[in-house]
Amino acid sequence: MFIRGSKETDGEGDMNVITVERKVLEKNDDVARLNRADFHERGIFVLNLVSSPGSGKTSILEKTCEALRGTMRISVIEGDVQTDLDAQRVAAYGVPVVQIVTLGGCHLDAGLVRDAMQKLDIDQTDLLFIENVGNLVCPAGYDLGEAMKVAVLSTTEGDDKPLKYPAMFLNASVLIINKTDLIPYVNCNLNELKGNALKINPSIRIFEMSCTTGAGIPEWRDWLINKG
Amino acid sequence: MFIRGSKETDGEGDMNVITVERKVLEKNDDVARLNRADFHERGIFVLNLVSSPGSGKTSILEKTCEALRGTMRISVIEGDVQTDLDAQRVAAYGVPVVQIVTLGGCHLDAGLVRDAMQKLDIDQTDLLFIENVGNLVCPAGYDLGEAMKVAVLSTTEGDDKPLKYPAMFLNASVLIINKTDLIPYVNCNLNELKGNALKINPSIRIFEMSCTTGAGIPEWRDWLINKG
Repeated sequence: MFIRGSKETDGEGDMNVITVERKVLEKNDDVARLNRADFHERGIFVLNLVSSPGSGKTSILEKTCEALRGTMRISVIEGDVQTDLDAQRVAAYGVPVVQIVTLGGCHLDAGLVRDAMQKLDIDQTDLLFIENVGNLVCPAGYDLGEAMKVAVLSTTEGDDKPLKYPAMFLNASVLIINKTDLIPYVNCNLNELKGNALKINPSIRIFEMSCTTGAGIPEWRDWLINKG
Repeated sequence: MFIRGSKETDGEGDMNVITVERKVLEKNDDVARLNRADFHERGIFVLNLVSSPGSGKTSILEKTCEALRGTMRISVIEGDVQTDLDAQRVAAYGVPVVQIVTLGGCHLDAGLVRDAMQKLDIDQTDLLFIENVGNLVCPAGYDLGEAMKVAVLSTTEGDDKPLKYPAMFLNASVLIINKTDLIPYVNCNLNELKGNALKINPSIRIFEMSCTTGAGIPEWRDWLINKG
């Protein structure tokens, strides 16, 4: 049996939601354009890191800070539903960090990022990472003004995820497949995973990485230096 | 630096969103009450499985179908953003399955479950599993009419997740810590994880499980038979 459900088909009450959501998205896009213009003017390369909870976004940031030390000036905006645990981890690497706590909100938006920008010395930044709330659905629809969305997927999540959560992989320019060191222990076919991602987005740039072994970090570092 | 952001503080436009969201939640709660009454009348034990993508909800369902064969009559409602991959996996165990595809929606709601119920022979069901969309944020706020929410968290996601996504662990009655076989290879302290979950919800019932080794399945099976 198969039911197709969507908010659009749920009747009058939810049509209101759709209308309001559209207005919120339009307002978000306006602010995202301002952010993007500010980043562009200052020559800051901005990446919006998106993934499920626990895919390793913060570990990737830690490894990236280490790998780029003395090469590029990094700043970080951390987004979490609660706690500043991730900001504490990243701050330990000596980079400026602003924590946004969404208090239940399931994604960052351009306005929150704009607020956070005021707290950072962005003129002293070459590369800005925005670590979004851990959620493979909602952050896909929100432009923050970034140059690119970087989706992170860990091998432990299984190789079918690009097909099941297509919007995220369609909207991302880069996919980091993280935790490749765990492949021997989990049910994940790497070629299948890459094939599924490319089926959704044929132009997505894929990096394979392990923050535990350090595999893939040099390629990622070189790409950032080249792009940033 | 620390910014507290919430939809409520974002100005007039977003106040509209809050108002409409409240109406949608109230409408959802009305339908959830109807569902719950129907389940209660028929003596069906209903569990709403919630987790991040890739925590192993579907694998747990597969193991549960196997373990309860001939003991309890199981039906399953599958919720996914896209594809019926999970429904196909579960249907292979010979249990009735209805797939809901949310077409981008980040959680199930009581109305979608009510539609799905019409497609199942619920009078022939002792135990109904509703596998929600993989998302550790949004499904926490939606009552589907279930007896309990069962949160699944895999060890690969790290031990800090209950603190970072508290609503889900507060609203769940049961926590399954899955993929315990991977503990030697990942950065997860099991006692820390359990402590964090109990800090958020002191009465949460915790099961430790591995669908790969089968550990924890007998205890889970006995609990289901006892409750169902």
